[in-house]
Amino acid sequence: MHPLDQATALTRAADGLWDGATSDRYWNFAGPFGGYLAALTLNAVLKDERRLGPPVAQTVNYCGALAKGAFRIATTLERGGKATQHWTVRLTQGDAVVTTASIVCANRRETFAQAVTERPAVPAPESLTRFVAAERFAWIGAYDFRFVEGGPVLDGQPRQGEGLGPSRTVLWMRDAPERPLDHLALASLADCFILRLLQMRGKLVPMSTVSMTTYFHATDAELAAQGTAHLLGVADSKRFAGNFHDQVMDLWGRDGRLIATGIQTVWYKE
Amino acid sequence: MHPLDQATALTRAADGLWDGATSDRYWNFAGPFGGYLAALTLNAVLKDERRLGPPVAQTVNYCGALAKGAFRIATTLERGGKATQHWTVRLTQGDAVVTTASIVCANRRETFAQAVTERPAVPAPESLTRFVAAERFAWIGAYDFRFVEGGPVLDGQPRQGEGLGPSRTVLWMRDAPERPLDHLALASLADCFILRLLQMRGKLVPMSTVSMTTYFHATDAELAAQGTAHLLGVADSKRFAGNFHDQVMDLWGRDGRLIATGIQTVWYKE
Repeated sequence: MHPLDQATALTRAADGLWDGATSDRYWNFAGPFGGYLAALTLNAVLKDERRLGPPVAQTVNYCGALAKGAFRIATTLERGGKATQHWTVRLTQGDAVVTTASIVCANRRETFAQAVTERPAVPAPESLTRFVAAERFAWIGAYDFRFVEGGPVLDGQPRQGEGLGPSRTVLWMRDAPERPLDHLALASLADCFILRLLQMRGKLVPMSTVSMTTYFHATDAELAAQGTAHLLGVADSKRFAGNFHDQVMDLWGRDGRLIATGIQTVWYKE
Repeated sequence: MHPLDQATALTRAADGLWDGATSDRYWNFAGPFGGYLAALTLNAVLKDERRLGPPVAQTVNYCGALAKGAFRIATTLERGGKATQHWTVRLTQGDAVVTTASIVCANRRETFAQAVTERPAVPAPESLTRFVAAERFAWIGAYDFRFVEGGPVLDGQPRQGEGLGPSRTVLWMRDAPERPLDHLALASLADCFILRLLQMRGKLVPMSTVSMTTYFHATDAELAAQGTAHLLGVADSKRFAGNFHDQVMDLWGRDGRLIATGIQTVWYKE
């Protein structure tokens, strides 16, 4: 069993009620990296027999830190029709709400289709070296990252003004060990970009994502065709102000199609 | 009282429970335009005494059509700390969930700030003509739109392939009549872009936004300085596939600062 499937395993406690326990594999600082909670909350809907079809959109709200140990996930099917279905998800530990999520599933068919943006031209992942992180970031070891531009400079030397690092990063990424791409993996890959504040300033201060939204564009056939190949990820920000910054991301398939897009907003202390 | 304030007026029924009634002013086809529901759900949190500070992020899920008449809004404070606060909002008519929303509020201060993107250089709104819509789109009359590029071509002639219209639109926008900018108005202005599917194909087919996320970047001082001036809006899409397309938007202030950004995902039938 792949580590992602182990770490996101859920046991059905009742209709729309799931039990699970944390995994060290996707740990960051004070808790798991946010992509793990995105995968967990999505999985509770993916496993539900009432689900209409594949997910189209997911918003995850990071309300508080997840402690190591057991948690419970409750799902509510807010409303469903023939075309779309709206879910609310709440992950708790005891009485504390750790994460909420809203998920839209749909009955997707082939109709009018149009690609508006194009994948950047970059070197193949095979020509690049895999990024090796310090052992204290467990979750980074759960991925194979190959930076094309905007690789992390974590030297602890704070940069500011014209000395700031680039806001844009382009990298190839996939699960390590390899795992065929599906929505569960996509939900976490969407959060695999190092926070732009750290990227630009090179300095660790208290910071965390408070909300993340991911849109799943790929058809099931495109996900299957992607298999275990690397995705090309592009991340950037638009503005840092008032203790928060946004982050924008695109994930491209090896065939040049846009697999997923999303945004997140990040709180930072200073 | 401004039409937006009339249309979003709420009466407190109990703690976290609000009653309201629809307004024809912001009506679209089968219901109000989505920005009206964004403003309504935000207002229930803005009016709450427990609110920590200004909103940072809002995700609105459009679960079903809002019928004319009374509705109820229930808010839940999921979790709050010194820096951030997470709310869930549910708007219902009878037993039917019409809209859900998640809203993050925060205690915002001035700290590290950086503008990454720059406002496009465009002609001033005073040099452009206000867009006049057919009377059947009531909500368009509630705004002063001045198109810089990518204005709507609603001639009913379906376009496809190389004949598709541009995906990008740039326009000046503000409430009509004028109203000083605040978060309530911003929440609806974020949804003031004609759906990209209609923009590109020029043909009305069944379509509707299923989820929209808006990030509020501007400080309170910047909002106050904006006053009743036009905002510059930029909208585009990245991909249309499997009955859904995304939409990306930026709202710029007259001083060149990025006031809000967001995305939405739109279902379309064919």
